Amino acid sequence: MKPILSVFADSPDQGQGQARDMPVRWAFEEVGLPYDVRPVPWKQFKEPAHRARNPFGQIPTIEEGKLTLFESGAIVLHIAEAGEGLLPRDAEARARAITWMFAAVTTIQMPIVDREVVEYLEGEKPWAHERMAMVDDRIRGRFGELAAHLGGGEWLDGDFSAGDLLMVTVLRRLEGSDLLSEFPTLCAFVERGKDRPAFKRAFAGQKAVFEASVKA
Amino acid sequence: MKPILSVFADSPDQGQGQARDMPVRWAFEEVGLPYDVRPVPWKQFKEPAHRARNPFGQIPTIEEGKLTLFESGAIVLHIAEAGEGLLPRDAEARARAITWMFAAVTTIQMPIVDREVVEYLEGEKPWAHERMAMVDDRIRGRFGELAAHLGGGEWLDGDFSAGDLLMVTVLRRLEGSDLLSEFPTLCAFVERGKDRPAFKRAFAGQKAVFEASVKA
Repeated sequence: MKPILSVFADSPDQGQGQARDMPVRWAFEEVGLPYDVRPVPWKQFKEPAHRARNPFGQIPTIEEGKLTLFESGAIVLHIAEAGEGLLPRDAEARARAITWMFAAVTTIQMPIVDREVVEYLEGEKPWAHERMAMVDDRIRGRFGELAAHLGGGEWLDGDFSAGDLLMVTVLRRLEGSDLLSEFPTLCAFVERGKDRPAFKRAFAGQKAVFEASVKA
Repeated sequence: MKPILSVFADSPDQGQGQARDMPVRWAFEEVGLPYDVRPVPWKQFKEPAHRARNPFGQIPTIEEGKLTLFESGAIVLHIAEAGEGLLPRDAEARARAITWMFAAVTTIQMPIVDREVVEYLEGEKPWAHERMAMVDDRIRGRFGELAAHLGGGEWLDGDFSAGDLLMVTVLRRLEGSDLLSEFPTLCAFVERGKDRPAFKRAFAGQKAVFEASVKA
Protein backbone atom coordinates (compact mmCIF):
# COMPACT_ATOMS: atom_id res chain seq x y z
CA MET A 1 0.00 0.00 0.00
CA LYS A 2 1.39 3.36 -1.02
CA PRO A 3 1.80 6.12 1.58
CA ILE A 4 -0.83 8.85 1.37
CA LEU A 5 0.41 12.44 1.36
CA SER A 6 -2.01 15.18 2.39
CA VAL A 7 -1.73 18.35 0.30
CA PHE A 8 -3.65 21.59 -0.26
CA ALA A 9 -6.76 20.85 -2.35
CA ASP A 10 -6.40 24.40 -3.68
CA SER A 11 -2.92 25.70 -2.94
CA PRO A 12 -2.76 29.44 -2.17
CA ASP A 13 0.48 29.64 -4.20
CA GLN A 14 -1.44 28.60 -7.33
CA GLY A 15 0.86 25.73 -8.22
CA GLN A 16 4.21 27.43 -7.68
CA GLY A 17 5.38 24.54 -5.50
CA GLN A 18 5.84 26.68 -2.40
CA ALA A 19 3.54 24.62 -0.19
CA ARG A 20 5.23 22.26 2.22
CA ASP A 21 4.11 19.12 0.43
CA MET A 22 6.73 20.01 -2.21
CA PRO A 23 9.84 18.81 -0.28
CA VAL A 24 8.01 15.58 0.59
CA ARG A 25 7.05 14.97 -3.05
CA TRP A 26 10.62 15.75 -4.06
CA ALA A 27 11.98 13.26 -1.51
CA PHE A 28 9.62 10.52 -2.73
CA GLU A 29 10.75 11.20 -6.30
CA GLU A 30 14.47 11.19 -5.39
CA VAL A 31 14.28 7.74 -3.77
CA GLY A 32 11.76 6.44 -6.30
CA LEU A 33 8.97 5.52 -3.91
CA PRO A 34 5.40 5.85 -5.23
CA TYR A 35 2.79 7.69 -3.18
CA ASP A 36 -0.85 8.70 -3.30
CA VAL A 37 -2.23 12.15 -2.62
CA ARG A 38 -5.10 13.27 -0.44
CA PRO A 39 -6.12 16.85 -1.32
CA VAL A 40 -7.51 18.58 1.79
CA PRO A 41 -9.59 21.76 1.36
CA TRP A 42 -8.27 24.62 3.47
CA LYS A 43 -11.50 24.86 5.45
CA GLN A 44 -11.01 21.27 6.65
CA PHE A 45 -7.49 21.85 8.03
CA LYS A 46 -8.73 22.60 11.55
CA GLU A 47 -11.45 19.96 11.61
CA PRO A 48 -11.07 16.79 13.73
CA ALA A 49 -10.34 14.46 10.80
CA HIS A 50 -7.25 16.43 9.77
CA ARG A 51 -6.24 17.35 13.33
CA ALA A 52 -6.05 13.60 13.99
CA ARG A 53 -3.29 13.56 11.35
CA ASN A 54 -1.60 16.74 12.57
CA PRO A 55 -2.53 18.40 15.90
CA PHE A 56 -1.55 21.78 14.41
CA GLY A 57 -3.93 21.39 11.47
CA GLN A 58 -1.37 21.82 8.71
CA ILE A 59 -0.20 19.98 5.62
CA PRO A 60 1.74 17.88 4.80
CA THR A 61 1.06 14.63 6.62
CA ILE A 62 1.72 11.09 5.48
CA GLU A 63 -0.19 7.94 6.34
CA GLU A 64 1.39 4.53 5.95
CA GLY A 65 -1.02 1.95 7.32
CA LYS A 66 -1.33 2.78 11.02
CA LEU A 67 1.56 5.25 11.02
CA THR A 68 0.79 8.95 10.59
CA LEU A 69 3.54 11.58 10.50
CA PHE A 70 3.59 15.35 10.12
CA GLU A 71 6.28 18.07 9.87
CA SER A 72 7.85 18.17 6.41
CA GLY A 73 11.40 17.85 7.81
CA ALA A 74 10.52 14.71 9.76
CA ILE A 75 8.73 13.18 6.77
CA VAL A 76 11.66 13.88 4.45
CA LEU A 77 13.97 12.19 6.98
CA HIS A 78 11.59 9.21 7.19
CA ILE A 79 11.59 8.84 3.39
CA ALA A 80 15.37 9.30 3.23
CA GLU A 81 15.77 6.43 5.69
CA ALA A 82 13.30 4.22 3.79
CA GLY A 83 14.94 4.67 0.40
CA GLU A 84 18.35 5.28 -1.14
CA GLY A 85 20.01 8.46 -2.36
CA LEU A 86 19.11 11.13 0.17
CA LEU A 87 21.40 10.15 3.06
CA PRO A 88 25.00 8.96 2.75
CA ARG A 89 25.71 5.40 3.92
CA ASP A 90 28.78 6.55 5.83
CA ALA A 91 27.66 7.28 9.41
CA GLU A 92 29.58 10.54 9.79
CA ALA A 93 28.49 11.93 6.42
CA ARG A 94 24.91 10.93 7.28
CA ALA A 95 25.07 12.85 10.58
CA ARG A 96 26.38 15.92 8.74
CA ALA A 97 23.55 15.72 6.17
CA ILE A 98 21.03 15.64 9.03
CA THR A 99 22.74 18.69 10.55
CA TRP A 100 22.03 20.53 7.30
CA MET A 101 18.39 19.42 7.40
CA PHE A 102 17.99 21.09 10.79
CA ALA A 103 19.99 24.15 9.67
CA ALA A 104 17.58 24.57 6.75
CA VAL A 105 14.35 24.35 8.73
CA THR A 106 15.56 26.37 11.76
CA THR A 107 18.54 28.72 11.29
CA ILE A 108 17.76 29.63 7.67
CA GLN A 109 13.99 29.20 7.67
CA MET A 110 13.21 31.26 10.80
CA PRO A 111 14.02 34.73 9.41
CA ILE A 112 12.43 33.80 6.06
CA VAL A 113 9.17 32.87 7.78
CA ASP A 114 9.45 36.09 9.79
CA ARG A 115 9.55 37.96 6.48
CA GLU A 116 6.32 36.20 5.49
CA VAL A 117 4.81 37.31 8.81
CA VAL A 118 5.54 40.93 7.83
CA GLU A 119 4.17 40.36 4.34
CA TYR A 120 0.95 38.55 5.21
CA LEU A 121 0.09 39.57 8.78
CA GLU A 122 1.65 43.02 9.27
CA GLY A 123 1.57 44.44 5.76
CA GLU A 124 -1.12 47.04 6.59
CA LYS A 125 0.77 48.43 9.59
CA PRO A 126 2.51 51.81 9.25
CA TRP A 127 5.69 50.19 10.58
CA ALA A 128 5.73 47.28 8.11
CA HIS A 129 8.47 48.83 5.94
CA GLU A 130 10.76 49.47 8.88
CA ARG A 131 10.19 45.91 10.15
CA MET A 132 10.80 44.39 6.73
CA ALA A 133 14.14 46.20 6.42
CA MET A 134 15.22 44.78 9.79
CA VAL A 135 14.17 41.24 8.86
CA ASP A 136 15.91 41.51 5.49
CA ASP A 137 19.15 42.43 7.23
CA ARG A 138 18.91 39.34 9.42
CA ILE A 139 18.30 37.22 6.32
CA ARG A 140 21.29 38.84 4.57
CA GLY A 141 23.48 37.89 7.53
CA ARG A 142 22.46 34.23 7.28
CA PHE A 143 22.64 34.17 3.49
CA GLY A 144 26.16 35.61 3.59
CA GLU A 145 27.24 32.84 5.96
CA LEU A 146 25.54 30.16 3.88
CA ALA A 147 27.08 31.46 0.63
CA ALA A 148 30.52 31.56 2.29
CA HIS A 149 30.12 27.94 3.34
CA LEU A 150 29.00 26.83 -0.13
CA GLY A 151 31.80 28.75 -1.87
CA GLY A 152 32.41 27.04 -5.20
CA GLY A 153 30.89 23.76 -4.03
CA GLU A 154 27.95 22.09 -5.72
CA TRP A 155 26.12 20.95 -2.58
CA LEU A 156 26.37 21.68 1.15
CA ASP A 157 28.49 18.65 2.08
CA GLY A 158 29.62 16.21 -0.61
CA ASP A 159 26.90 14.60 -2.71
CA PHE A 160 23.30 15.85 -2.90
CA SER A 161 21.41 14.91 0.27
CA ALA A 162 18.18 15.55 2.18
CA GLY A 163 20.01 18.56 3.65
CA ASP A 164 20.33 20.14 0.20
CA LEU A 165 16.74 19.20 -0.62
CA LEU A 166 15.41 21.08 2.43
CA MET A 167 17.79 24.01 2.01
CA VAL A 168 16.78 24.54 -1.64
CA THR A 169 13.13 24.28 -0.56
CA VAL A 170 13.56 26.92 2.13
CA LEU A 171 15.52 29.29 -0.15
CA ARG A 172 12.86 28.92 -2.84
CA ARG A 173 10.43 30.77 -0.54
CA LEU A 174 12.35 33.91 -1.60
CA GLU A 175 12.56 32.90 -5.26
CA GLY A 176 12.37 35.89 -7.56
CA SER A 177 13.00 38.35 -4.71
CA ASP A 178 15.73 40.97 -4.92
CA LEU A 179 17.01 39.62 -1.62
CA LEU A 180 17.94 36.19 -2.99
CA SER A 181 19.33 37.79 -6.15
CA GLU A 182 21.94 39.56 -4.02
CA PHE A 183 23.54 36.14 -3.50
CA PRO A 184 24.42 34.58 -6.88
CA THR A 185 26.01 31.60 -5.12
CA LEU A 186 22.67 30.77 -3.50
CA CYS A 187 20.70 31.39 -6.70
CA ALA A 188 22.95 28.93 -8.53
CA PHE A 189 22.50 26.40 -5.71
CA VAL A 190 18.71 26.70 -5.99
CA GLU A 191 18.88 26.30 -9.77
CA ARG A 192 20.96 23.13 -9.39
CA GLY A 193 18.23 21.74 -7.15
CA LYS A 194 15.49 22.68 -9.60
CA ASP A 195 17.40 21.04 -12.45
CA ARG A 196 17.13 17.63 -10.84
CA PRO A 197 14.64 15.35 -12.63
CA ALA A 198 13.08 14.40 -9.27
CA PHE A 199 12.39 18.07 -8.49
CA LYS A 200 10.73 18.50 -11.89
CA ARG A 201 8.49 15.46 -11.37
CA ALA A 202 7.51 16.70 -7.90
CA PHE A 203 6.78 20.16 -9.24
CA ALA A 204 4.61 18.75 -12.02
CA GLY A 205 2.76 16.63 -9.44
CA GLN A 206 1.75 19.54 -7.24
CA LYS A 207 0.92 21.70 -10.25
CA ALA A 208 -1.43 19.04 -11.61
CA VAL A 209 -3.37 19.04 -8.31
CA PHE A 210 -3.70 22.82 -8.47
CA GLU A 211 -4.82 22.80 -12.11
CA ALA A 212 -7.43 20.13 -11.40
CA SER A 213 -8.78 22.29 -8.55
CA VAL A 214 -9.19 25.26 -10.92
CA LYS A 215 -11.15 23.17 -13.42
CA ALA A 216 -13.36 21.67 -10.70
CA MET B 1 37.73 9.95 23.45
CA LYS B 2 34.77 11.91 24.78
CA PRO B 3 32.84 14.25 22.45
CA ILE B 4 33.57 17.93 23.00
CA LEU B 5 30.57 20.24 23.32
CA SER B 6 31.07 23.95 22.64
CA VAL B 7 29.17 26.23 25.01
CA PHE B 8 29.03 29.91 25.93
CA ALA B 9 32.10 30.79 28.04
CA ASP B 10 29.90 33.42 29.70
CA SER B 11 26.25 32.68 28.99
CA PRO B 12 24.05 35.77 28.57
CA ASP B 13 21.29 33.98 30.52
CA GLN B 14 23.55 33.84 33.60
CA GLY B 15 23.23 30.12 34.14
CA GLN B 16 19.46 29.77 33.66
CA GLY B 17 20.01 26.93 31.19
CA GLN B 18 18.37 28.78 28.29
CA ALA B 19 21.36 28.53 25.95
CA ARG B 20 21.17 25.86 23.29
CA ASP B 21 23.87 23.70 24.79
CA MET B 22 21.27 22.76 27.44
CA PRO B 23 19.25 20.24 25.31
CA VAL B 24 22.52 18.64 24.17
CA ARG B 25 23.77 18.29 27.76
CA TRP B 26 20.37 16.90 28.74
CA ALA B 27 20.51 14.34 25.92
CA PHE B 28 24.02 13.22 26.93
CA GLU B 29 22.80 12.81 30.52
CA GLU B 30 19.67 10.87 29.51
CA VAL B 31 21.65 8.27 27.57
CA GLY B 32 24.55 8.31 30.03
CA LEU B 33 27.32 9.29 27.63
CA PRO B 34 30.17 11.38 29.09
CA TYR B 35 31.30 14.55 27.31
CA ASP B 36 33.80 17.35 27.63
CA VAL B 37 33.04 21.05 27.33
CA ARG B 38 34.79 23.77 25.35
CA PRO B 39 33.72 27.20 26.61
CA VAL B 40 33.84 29.72 23.73
CA PRO B 41 33.87 33.46 24.53
CA TRP B 42 31.14 35.32 22.68
CA LYS B 43 33.66 37.47 20.80
CA GLN B 44 35.18 34.33 19.25
CA PHE B 45 31.87 33.02 17.84
CA LYS B 46 32.38 34.66 14.46
CA GLU B 47 36.11 33.96 14.21
CA PRO B 48 37.46 31.33 11.78
CA ALA B 49 38.20 28.70 14.46
CA HIS B 50 34.57 28.56 15.58
CA ARG B 51 33.12 29.12 12.09
CA ALA B 52 34.99 25.96 11.07
CA ARG B 53 32.77 24.16 13.61
CA ASN B 54 29.59 26.01 12.65
CA PRO B 55 29.38 28.22 9.52
CA PHE B 56 26.76 30.36 11.31
CA GLY B 57 29.05 31.06 14.27
CA GLN B 58 26.73 29.74 16.98
CA ILE B 59 26.85 27.26 19.83
CA PRO B 60 26.40 24.38 20.39
CA THR B 61 28.69 22.23 18.28
CA ILE B 62 30.10 18.80 19.05
CA GLU B 63 33.38 17.32 17.94
CA GLU B 64 33.93 13.57 17.96
CA GLY B 65 37.31 12.85 16.43
CA LYS B 66 37.02 14.08 12.84
CA LEU B 67 33.25 14.56 12.99
CA THR B 68 31.89 18.03 13.78
CA LEU B 69 28.16 18.70 14.04
CA PHE B 70 26.09 21.79 14.80
CA GLU B 71 22.35 22.55 15.24
CA SER B 72 21.07 21.44 18.64
CA GLY B 73 18.23 19.39 17.12
CA ALA B 74 20.62 17.45 14.90
CA ILE B 75 23.05 16.86 17.77
CA VAL B 76 20.27 15.61 20.06
CA LEU B 77 19.19 13.18 17.32
CA HIS B 78 22.79 12.03 16.88
CA ILE B 79 23.11 11.35 20.63
CA ALA B 80 19.69 9.66 20.72
CA GLU B 81 20.86 7.28 17.98
CA ALA B 82 24.18 6.61 19.74
CA GLY B 83 22.66 5.76 23.12
CA GLU B 84 19.50 4.27 24.60
CA GLY B 85 16.42 5.88 26.08
CA LEU B 86 15.65 8.85 23.83
CA LEU B 87 14.19 7.07 20.81
CA PRO B 88 11.81 4.07 20.89
CA ARG B 89 13.13 0.85 19.35
CA ASP B 90 9.87 0.32 17.48
CA ALA B 91 10.32 1.88 14.03
CA GLU B 92 6.91 3.60 13.92
CA ALA B 93 7.18 5.02 17.43
CA ARG B 94 10.70 6.21 16.58
CA ALA B 95 9.41 8.05 13.48
CA ARG B 96 6.70 9.73 15.56
CA ALA B 97 9.25 10.83 18.19
CA ILE B 98 11.33 12.42 15.41
CA THR B 99 8.19 14.18 14.14
CA TRP B 100 7.88 15.78 17.59
CA MET B 101 11.53 16.85 17.47
CA PHE B 102 10.85 18.79 14.27
CA ALA B 103 7.55 20.14 15.62
CA ALA B 104 9.42 21.51 18.65
CA VAL B 105 12.20 23.30 16.75
CA THR B 106 10.00 24.60 13.91
CA THR B 107 6.23 24.88 14.51
CA ILE B 108 6.50 25.73 18.22
CA GLN B 109 9.88 27.42 18.29
CA MET B 110 9.32 29.86 15.40
CA PRO B 111 6.80 32.19 17.09
CA ILE B 112 8.74 31.94 20.38
CA VAL B 113 11.93 33.11 18.68
CA ASP B 114 9.89 35.84 16.98
CA ARG B 115 8.89 37.03 20.46
CA GLU B 116 12.59 37.21 21.36
CA VAL B 117 13.15 39.28 18.22
CA VAL B 118 10.60 41.80 19.51
CA GLU B 119 12.15 41.74 22.98
CA TYR B 120 15.82 42.07 22.02
CA LEU B 121 15.87 43.72 18.59
CA GLU B 122 12.69 45.80 18.39
CA GLY B 123 12.08 46.71 22.05
CA GLU B 124 12.88 50.41 21.54
CA LYS B 125 10.45 50.83 18.64
CA PRO B 126 7.17 52.66 19.25
CA TRP B 127 5.35 49.71 17.66
CA ALA B 128 6.97 47.03 19.86
CA HIS B 129 3.89 46.61 22.07
CA GLU B 130 1.54 46.18 19.15
CA ARG B 131 3.92 43.66 17.56
CA MET B 132 4.33 41.72 20.79
CA ALA B 133 0.55 41.38 21.18
CA MET B 134 0.32 39.95 17.66
CA VAL B 135 3.16 37.48 18.27
CA ASP B 136 1.65 36.43 21.59
CA ASP B 137 -1.63 35.58 19.87
CA ARG B 138 0.21 33.37 17.40
CA ILE B 139 1.95 31.63 20.28
CA ARG B 140 -1.38 31.17 22.08
CA GLY B 141 -2.78 29.49 19.00
CA ARG B 142 0.06 26.96 18.92
CA PHE B 143 0.05 26.44 22.68
CA GLY B 144 -3.68 25.73 22.63
CA GLU B 145 -3.16 23.08 19.97
CA LEU B 146 -0.21 21.56 21.81
CA ALA B 147 -2.12 21.48 25.13
CA ALA B 148 -5.09 19.87 23.39
CA HIS B 149 -2.82 17.17 22.01
CA LEU B 150 -1.18 16.51 25.39
CA GLY B 151 -4.53 16.41 27.21
CA GLY B 152 -4.01 14.35 30.34
CA GLY B 153 -0.99 12.54 28.90
CA GLU B 154 2.43 12.59 30.50
CA TRP B 155 4.50 12.94 27.32
CA LEU B 156 3.79 13.77 23.68
CA ASP B 157 3.63 10.19 22.39
CA GLY B 158 4.08 7.29 24.81
CA ASP B 159 7.31 7.22 26.81
CA PHE B 160 9.66 10.20 27.22
CA SER B 161 11.67 10.76 24.04
CA ALA B 162 13.95 13.22 22.31
CA GLY B 163 10.74 14.88 21.08
CA ASP B 164 9.71 15.69 24.66
CA LEU B 165 13.26 16.79 25.48
CA LEU B 166 13.27 19.36 22.66
CA MET B 167 9.68 20.47 23.30
CA VAL B 168 10.35 21.11 27.01
CA THR B 169 13.52 22.98 26.03
CA VAL B 170 11.64 25.21 23.59
CA LEU B 171 8.78 25.91 26.03
CA ARG B 172 11.29 26.79 28.76
CA ARG B 173 12.25 29.85 26.72
CA LEU B 174 8.97 31.33 28.02
CA GLU B 175 9.43 30.01 31.56
CA GLY B 176 8.04 32.40 34.14
CA SER B 177 6.09 34.37 31.53
CA ASP B 178 2.38 35.03 31.91
CA LEU B 179 1.94 33.55 28.46
CA LEU B 180 3.08 30.05 29.44
CA SER B 181 1.12 30.31 32.73
CA GLU B 182 -2.09 30.58 30.70
CA PHE B 183 -1.58 26.91 29.80
CA PRO B 184 -1.37 24.79 32.99
CA THR B 185 -1.13 21.62 30.89
CA LEU B 186 2.07 22.90 29.30
CA CYS B 187 3.49 24.18 32.61
CA ALA B 188 2.99 20.72 34.12
CA PHE B 189 4.66 19.14 31.08
CA VAL B 190 7.67 21.43 31.50
CA GLU B 191 7.87 20.63 35.20
CA ARG B 192 7.83 16.89 34.47
CA GLY B 193 10.80 17.43 32.19
CA LYS B 194 12.66 19.47 34.79
CA ASP B 195 12.05 16.79 37.42
CA ARG B 196 14.08 14.25 35.49
CA PRO B 197 17.47 13.54 37.11
CA ALA B 198 19.20 13.92 33.72
CA PHE B 199 17.74 17.43 33.33
CA LYS B 200 19.01 18.35 36.79
CA ARG B 201 22.52 17.10 36.06
CA ALA B 202 22.57 19.01 32.76
CA PHE B 203 21.33 22.16 34.45
CA ALA B 204 24.01 21.89 37.13
CA GLY B 205 26.63 21.39 34.41
CA GLN B 206 25.83 24.58 32.55
CA LYS B 207 25.44 26.54 35.78
CA ALA B 208 28.89 25.47 36.92
CA VAL B 209 30.42 26.85 33.70
CA PHE B 210 28.64 30.17 34.24
CA GLU B 211 29.70 30.40 37.89
CA ALA B 212 33.30 29.66 36.99
CA SER B 213 33.17 32.48 34.41
CA VAL B 214 31.98 34.93 37.06
CA LYS B 215 34.83 34.02 39.37
CA ALA B 216 37.42 34.22 36.61
